[in-house]
Amino acid sequence: MSSIENITTLRVRYSETDQMGGFYNSRALEWFECGRTEMTRKFGVPYSEMETRGLFLPIVEAHVKFLGRARYDDELRMTTKVAMFGRARVRFDHEIVHAKNGAPVARGYTVHAFLDATGKPIRPPAWFTSLLGQETP
Amino acid sequence: MSSIENITTLRVRYSETDQMGGFYNSRALEWFECGRTEMTRKFGVPYSEMETRGLFLPIVEAHVKFLGRARYDDELRMTTKVAMFGRARVRFDHEIVHAKNGAPVARGYTVHAFLDATGKPIRPPAWFTSLLGQETP
Amino acid sequence: MSSIENITTLRVRYSETDQMGGFYNSRALEWFECGRTEMTRKFGVPYSEMETRGLFLPIVEAHVKFLGRARYDDELRMTTKVAMFGRARVRFDHEIVHAKNGAPVARGYTVHAFLDATGKPIRPPAWFTSLLGQETP
Amino acid sequence: MSSIENITTLRVRYSETDQMGGFYNSRALEWFECGRTEMTRKFGVPYSEMETRGLFLPIVEAHVKFLGRARYDDELRMTTKVAMFGRARVRFDHEIVHAKNGAPVARGYTVHAFLDATGKPIRPPAWFTSLLGQETP
Repeated sequence: MSSIENITTLRVRYSETDQMGGFYNSRALEWFECGRTEMTRKFGVPYSEMETRGLFLPIVEAHVKFLGRARYDDELRMTTKVAMFGRARVRFDHEIVHAKNGAPVARGYTVHAFLDATGKPIRPPAWFTSLLGQETP
Repeated sequence: MSSIENITTLRVRYSETDQMGGFYNSRALEWFECGRTEMTRKFGVPYSEMETRGLFLPIVEAHVKFLGRARYDDELRMTTKVAMFGRARVRFDHEIVHAKNGAPVARGYTVHAFLDATGKPIRPPAWFTSLLGQETP
Repeated sequence: MSSIENITTLRVRYSETDQMGGFYNSRALEWFECGRTEMTRKFGVPYSEMETRGLFLPIVEAHVKFLGRARYDDELRMTTKVAMFGRARVRFDHEIVHAKNGAPVARGYTVHAFLDATGKPIRPPAWFTSLLGQETP
Repeated sequence: MSSIENITTLRVRYSETDQMGGFYNSRALEWFECGRTEMTRKFGVPYSEMETRGLFLPIVEAHVKFLGRARYDDELRMTTKVAMFGRARVRFDHEIVHAKNGAPVARGYTVHAFLDATGKPIRPPAWFTSLLGQETP
């Protein structure tokens, strides 16, 4: 099964720190979403346009391993990969490291369902699966 | 002009702290929103129901004074007052103090417009102004 | 291995919604933290006091299954369980359902390391493991 | 009184939207902080380094006017200006517009005190005021 990859960077915001001095754990899921957004832009169909087309990808599962600290203003590099996950799910793999030295920060995946605008589960549209370089199921 | 008052409590969440050791500044606006939510519940028409009825109150202005620290797990007491602000705006006043000793934490106001479900500015409905104990304008 | 359980409730805040109309996914991790906070309070040693005593429990892994929608102002009931996870980790299990009918919203776990105030890994202190009703390892 | 200006861009994150379909109001304060971070980097002394040097600039007041909608993935351009505000305060002015057409989104200011690492109010250090091109008070 093929997968597509994209790399983006971001800086830890002050609002994302907590009193332990690093980033608060839930920020990882927010950064993963930024990675997905940039990934789909690279695709040629930004996620914002997917929703306009009536395709919604709500998250159904998330997993994160926290591998190292990152502090306010640290520059992070995030790699996002995407692949179908069975016939009715898509899975994104996310990896975050320090931009300056590649030291690991967090790694995880998210699994998403395919819904139409009314919230009904659907098969992934052909235009979506073809973006992933895969046969329509 | 009359005003209505409600008091609610909350605890500072770990996710709301920052590396300076207190709460991050934008949380004050989120807490103010919690105060408005509880205030409208006391009204008899929770804000969630207002939106269902087609009345939206988007924020057009916010002001906060940060008066003292609050740390993770501190219990805070929030007072919310509401009054019309001219004919087409409503203003909420918010005050947050430490529950245990009344020491001030933050104080501020938010001003809100009246929109219908299509995003068009409207006059406040009679049922809304009557909740505030005021004549329909 | 024994485990301890606590139940708490919360309401979905407006700031926790997203444009899909439910809660944004990362909020689940923030709510899980609220559950851990209340759980440790029930213990007799709130997490805020653990940090004062020099015991830090940074998260090293998180997993969430999103099981159903929850909207602004919905009241949620969260169950938190805790147990040792090997000798040097503690694991919290979290389950969130709608308070009014028990419909599932999210379920997941978080795994935490034991660090001292300098960030050095340590064995869990005896007072911690005895809170869990377990022999000191 | 002189002032220094910096311009930066950002995109509205999915996690920053709310069920009304635009960005949630408290995000404006978080974006303002991003503007201050980039502003101080342009200065030559990033805020992260200021804290390392023992200078803390906690917020004491914030004001925001919400001037127009911005949706998920919209690119925003933020202008940040800074100037002393009396002898013991610094004020940042923030303006956010749509990058593509300059349509206004939000405008506001934040006022900050000067504290040392122990949380004690101090006069702004000479190196700080000289960054602003001002005489040491």
